[in-house]
Amino acid sequence: MRSNAIKQRFRDGQPIVNGWLAIPSSYSAEITGHQGYDAVTVDMQHGLIDFASALTMLQALSSTPATPLARVSDNNPALMMQLLDAGAWGIICPMISTVAQAQQFVAACRYPPLGNRSFGPARALLYGGKDYPRHANEEMLTLAMIETQQGLDNLDDILAVPGLDGVFIGPNDLSLALTGEASAESTHPAMLAAVERVISATRRTQKMAGIFCTSGEAAAERLRQGFHFVTPANDVMQLSKAGRHAVAAARGEAAPATSASGY
Amino acid sequence: MRSNAIKQRFRDGQPIVNGWLAIPSSYSAEITGHQGYDAVTVDMQHGLIDFASALTMLQALSSTPATPLARVSDNNPALMMQLLDAGAWGIICPMISTVAQAQQFVAACRYPPLGNRSFGPARALLYGGKDYPRHANEEMLTLAMIETQQGLDNLDDILAVPGLDGVFIGPNDLSLALTGEASAESTHPAMLAAVERVISATRRTQKMAGIFCTSGEAAAERLRQGFHFVTPANDVMQLSKAGRHAVAAARGEAAPATSASGY
Amino acid sequence: MRSNAIKQRFRDGQPIVNGWLAIPSSYSAEITGHQGYDAVTVDMQHGLIDFASALTMLQALSSTPATPLARVSDNNPALMMQLLDAGAWGIICPMISTVAQAQQFVAACRYPPLGNRSFGPARALLYGGKDYPRHANEEMLTLAMIETQQGLDNLDDILAVPGLDGVFIGPNDLSLALTGEASAESTHPAMLAAVERVISATRRTQKMAGIFCTSGEAAAERLRQGFHFVTPANDVMQLSKAGRHAVAAARGEAAPATSASGY
Amino acid sequence: MRSNAIKQRFRDGQPIVNGWLAIPSSYSAEITGHQGYDAVTVDMQHGLIDFASALTMLQALSSTPATPLARVSDNNPALMMQLLDAGAWGIICPMISTVAQAQQFVAACRYPPLGNRSFGPARALLYGGKDYPRHANEEMLTLAMIETQQGLDNLDDILAVPGLDGVFIGPNDLSLALTGEASAESTHPAMLAAVERVISATRRTQKMAGIFCTSGEAAAERLRQGFHFVTPANDVMQLSKAGRHAVAAARGEAAPATSASGY
Amino acid sequence: MRSNAIKQRFRDGQPIVNGWLAIPSSYSAEITGHQGYDAVTVDMQHGLIDFASALTMLQALSSTPATPLARVSDNNPALMMQLLDAGAWGIICPMISTVAQAQQFVAACRYPPLGNRSFGPARALLYGGKDYPRHANEEMLTLAMIETQQGLDNLDDILAVPGLDGVFIGPNDLSLALTGEASAESTHPAMLAAVERVISATRRTQKMAGIFCTSGEAAAERLRQGFHFVTPANDVMQLSKAGRHAVAAARGEAAPATSASGY
Amino acid sequence: MRSNAIKQRFRDGQPIVNGWLAIPSSYSAEITGHQGYDAVTVDMQHGLIDFASALTMLQALSSTPATPLARVSDNNPALMMQLLDAGAWGIICPMISTVAQAQQFVAACRYPPLGNRSFGPARALLYGGKDYPRHANEEMLTLAMIETQQGLDNLDDILAVPGLDGVFIGPNDLSLALTGEASAESTHPAMLAAVERVISATRRTQKMAGIFCTSGEAAAERLRQGFHFVTPANDVMQLSKAGRHAVAAARGEAAPATSASGY
Repeated sequence: MRSNAIKQRFRDGQPIVNGWLAIPSSYSAEITGHQGYDAVTVDMQHGLIDFASALTMLQALSSTPATPLARVSDNNPALMMQLLDAGAWGIICPMISTVAQAQQFVAACRYPPLGNRSFGPARALLYGGKDYPRHANEEMLTLAMIETQQGLDNLDDILAVPGLDGVFIGPNDLSLALTGEASAESTHPAMLAAVERVISATRRTQKMAGIFCTSGEAAAERLRQGFHFVTPANDVMQLSKAGRHAVAAARGEAAPATSASGY
Repeated sequence: MRSNAIKQRFRDGQPIVNGWLAIPSSYSAEITGHQGYDAVTVDMQHGLIDFASALTMLQALSSTPATPLARVSDNNPALMMQLLDAGAWGIICPMISTVAQAQQFVAACRYPPLGNRSFGPARALLYGGKDYPRHANEEMLTLAMIETQQGLDNLDDILAVPGLDGVFIGPNDLSLALTGEASAESTHPAMLAAVERVISATRRTQKMAGIFCTSGEAAAERLRQGFHFVTPANDVMQLSKAGRHAVAAARGEAAPATSASGY
Repeated sequence: MRSNAIKQRFRDGQPIVNGWLAIPSSYSAEITGHQGYDAVTVDMQHGLIDFASALTMLQALSSTPATPLARVSDNNPALMMQLLDAGAWGIICPMISTVAQAQQFVAACRYPPLGNRSFGPARALLYGGKDYPRHANEEMLTLAMIETQQGLDNLDDILAVPGLDGVFIGPNDLSLALTGEASAESTHPAMLAAVERVISATRRTQKMAGIFCTSGEAAAERLRQGFHFVTPANDVMQLSKAGRHAVAAARGEAAPATSASGY
Repeated sequence: MRSNAIKQRFRDGQPIVNGWLAIPSSYSAEITGHQGYDAVTVDMQHGLIDFASALTMLQALSSTPATPLARVSDNNPALMMQLLDAGAWGIICPMISTVAQAQQFVAACRYPPLGNRSFGPARALLYGGKDYPRHANEEMLTLAMIETQQGLDNLDDILAVPGLDGVFIGPNDLSLALTGEASAESTHPAMLAAVERVISATRRTQKMAGIFCTSGEAAAERLRQGFHFVTPANDVMQLSKAGRHAVAAARGEAAPATSASGY
Repeated sequence: MRSNAIKQRFRDGQPIVNGWLAIPSSYSAEITGHQGYDAVTVDMQHGLIDFASALTMLQALSSTPATPLARVSDNNPALMMQLLDAGAWGIICPMISTVAQAQQFVAACRYPPLGNRSFGPARALLYGGKDYPRHANEEMLTLAMIETQQGLDNLDDILAVPGLDGVFIGPNDLSLALTGEASAESTHPAMLAAVERVISATRRTQKMAGIFCTSGEAAAERLRQGFHFVTPANDVMQLSKAGRHAVAAARGEAAPATSASGY
Repeated sequence: MRSNAIKQRFRDGQPIVNGWLAIPSSYSAEITGHQGYDAVTVDMQHGLIDFASALTMLQALSSTPATPLARVSDNNPALMMQLLDAGAWGIICPMISTVAQAQQFVAACRYPPLGNRSFGPARALLYGGKDYPRHANEEMLTLAMIETQQGLDNLDDILAVPGLDGVFIGPNDLSLALTGEASAESTHPAMLAAVERVISATRRTQKMAGIFCTSGEAAAERLRQGFHFVTPANDVMQLSKAGRHAVAAARGEAAPATSASGY
């Protein structure tokens, strides 16, 4: 079957740059998939994307070099299974704060006996090849989002859940939880400590550390810090910023600044 | 009824900065409508946008400060009437090369006795108000695209068509026609002459001169040249470029250049 | 094949009450199809309905007692053929002002040698039965809209076009053309004369006379005048009026009146 | 940010008349939003509305004077967060029978530390303004549906849940639970007592009391009874009834009556 | 109301042949509904079908002789209620392994006092008739999928849950659970025993036994074995196989074989 | 840019087996694209496919080995340009009966100076590569449908139109025109002569000869006759036939025959 290029890059020690789609359109998905990203994630939590759109977006990504992933709206096994059947090559699951939550997440992404994913691979067979059922358990990426104090507290145990490939920081939520303020590139001591904690724990366990960033420059800095998987803003932020700058340039004015949350 | 803010800006001598939508999504439309543009155009020619998407995009633009316009795929009266009924506050019509074509275009946008628009204002009543039928003939903007040698040759007569508000240069098509190469900011003498001809003819007749540009900076330059209505690239170009730049920055590389056509 | 119940009602001298859909939704279509109408028309001209929605609306109407019809956006043979393939049991074509226009309209709705409809009956076979191709030429209803002075002038010749089943008055457009004011139940002498002319010409030729009305009461009056096919307002007018009345009743206020055009 | 006009009306002692959308269409949503309602609710439980439609409906409502709300299909935090991100200015949650259920509901609508809403305001920023994150916890309306005996029994404790703005009676479900028969305007003693109980409990706690009604006249009566927030039927009921009446009037017949449930 | 023809066939001892839809299209649904199946199931688990598509598919099935059913993605009461409101005449629920799960499933499909289905029958009234609420509890079909060892172990107790009409074997999942290999027509002793166990338990209790098959021939064999309700492959398998065979025949080659799972 | 594999196969003397899509679904499109066809055509004439669906279908085909083509509803330059911008690698145009019609068709598919295609390659750049504009005129396939007596009469002149790659027989329409009966594999002498005429004329001019067939076996026969490009039925015919056969096999009955038109 089509192997997961993201997992290979991680094993090879290569950084992974991940696009992020919040606009429900197969066209913007395909455009993004052609800009050089290693992976592109369809965001069904804060993106305004339903399953029908996600399907056409995953299809559109399939003709690009990027590996298609999905972020689900919550730890919902049925939704994860549907996205995997639809051809997502990995799932990012928000708000994983306990081992039990991490286990439920991973089980939904693994066929028995490793998990409880229901059989019916549908579109994944088209994108992956006929031997998809035999290899899917190894190839599907699973990243648990750490965005609460409880998740941080349980980090080592979460990382020890068999089948979990790594963690992904939702910096706005984590910052809101730790500091009372949503901020994607916070320099608050609590956030700096949390980030450092995630990097060292994943390095120790050879798991993947990912994080959302507000720009390419911020993503480069995160890679330098030790993250393996970085997301330099989403399509909404990029389109908003490009529009603001184009209008300002056309009018000969200065463009307004971006907020701390990246929006 | 809701007056056409674009027409008012033109009468006031204010420049008009226009966004351009090629992605079929009401969300990207609404995002664009909030970035400071005076108008935003739904492109049904080279945008991959069908009527159902155009409707939701016009609805989304209606809650933003931008005036909603549409570019039609060709000089098709039925399509223009549907877009006006759906709440477009103006139409940009491609490939107007003769007076007869310009007359057909304008007639589709005007109720009798000025034209042959069929009555059934539908959503335009919601966005415009109950007296829309009485004022629509004055308020709906009509811009004819000049993008052939024939269109240039007939420019004065086209501008004299009653009810036509101005012209809009499609620089890639015009450049392809005049120089054999698609280019949005061409400095080929034939293009410079054509641009100059459009500016002087519209200034003389007090009609609006518009043009598509590949960036905010290019748009600022076009305003300095004498254009009134400028489009600093479309959403596809903006999203592509932002993605390329984000990936390059994340990887610590230089971003690839944009082609002459803006794509 | 499934015969056209509307044609049968006309032959039987029974009045035909026709619903009119401008909202692009298969659910509102099915609701309307169950309220007792003899026919329901999907309006692709002033309704904000694209082909994909029209398809699901025709499907939804197929499980109701109402005969599904479509009004096209203009005299476009390709669109008519697509709607017939999709299961419309008749076409109402706007702005028929000449014999040639009427002939083009009818030809698009008839297989050779009577017309030039292309073969590929698609969904019509499902709704109609396997012998659809043999009987479709007789069963598909064709109503030409009379809404210009020219259409009135050519009325007798239009009614003589073989295969045309009747005419349908677009009262707002006709009134706008004849009196300068859109009005659905105009009492202007020119409109009264035009209506009388249509009734007498269709009675003489045993063709169907249809008209759009703004309410059930107005439709009853049109039936008394001699019309055979009446449309008591569309879904948009009904929903707007019901909403206005509900709000007014809830607040203990009087509901605002409806405009002359019915909107 | 854009404040919640419904909360303000309640503080001002003004009645709130709320529209109710069950048809998945942005066009019918926009039509309804312009008929004078204070709020309009997108019903994702018994309305046949998916998230993609809800998004375009919320967008369409945003250009009308009505405050956009959503009724969710169940007490599902992920769905509530998506709807708030999509620009709903409040949530009506069905089947709240216990304090724990009410707490889960409210927590999903409040950012930490008041709740566990995940950060990513998306479209809410466009409709609400850049300071949405700071004020959303105060402005988002939360109404818990009381439609079981258990909900009635726990009413006082439910109303005491911090952050809950009020309750909303689903009369058909409550009547089915209490009397064995679905009925929207039931005069069964058990229902009269239940209604009275809700009115007095909300009056005592200065919380909002809402209820679904089958007509504007019934809604007026509910306001007189002491309710603050009334819904005079939904779009499906209005369209059905208007259609039935139009057909009956056209045929010169009496229109059939509406059932007790309002359908 | 419209009675459930599938329940009647079962009472009459007639076999039930059921189509299975995984492609999200109202057109392929309607095509399938006309091919002679007794029932057709919209598969929202491994079919790539969202609720909006399911609605139009149920509408399309309503004009065919087939009884419309839905398979849900998991034991989610809100989703089941929405599908029943949308006109599904029965629900197939995956992964029922315990009595509590079976009870939750059945309760979602029954109005109080038999269950907790919320009242708001919406489209079901249109398809079923005005007395739907009175009869729905008897007419809606409920089939619990047995596809785990635990489900087999609890089979007798599951079949004893009041209101459950029968069970349906998901052979790929059950085979994966019992034998470590997904296979739809497995001859592994463990699977043969499981199948025999389901047949004898349902015969004893006069409940319905259903199963998914990979072809019409396999379905005929299952009927001979004692199953009452058989599904001879889904639309994806049929379309894939037909395409492979057409290409092979056109090229004069042998067509490739189908895998054991049917895909 | 991505070269046109169909053109290459033709130059290499390899037969081309072409799939045909009438169901508006990106999923069935992708399934079909993986069954071994050299090309797959999105049918916008008798397929019930609108532009929005066509876009997602072309995207889905782009990740398969098949070359994506489109059949337009009529000789409409704007629609052809939109489909080429959306990534169709060729156009099949119905009802070409005169040289002027063929010239209009080809011109719409060629950039100046060879034609009048408007510049704005959109998605074609993503699928084809950045040098698409330079090579598109050579790579886009153009097939004119011959399906009238007039088209046959003008065949030699039509084949001589520069830029036309070949012709495609619509056998049902041609048979209806020549024999009064729609039939896809007619053995009527007039049809046999017409087919022979097309084969010899294309062989003489080294143009491509294509035809629609009702099965793989019929397609193999057409290849033996000398056709280069064959379509062994469409998805609707395949799904219908597979369903009929599955039901018959399950019931132990004989499957009903297919009609002469293939439907």
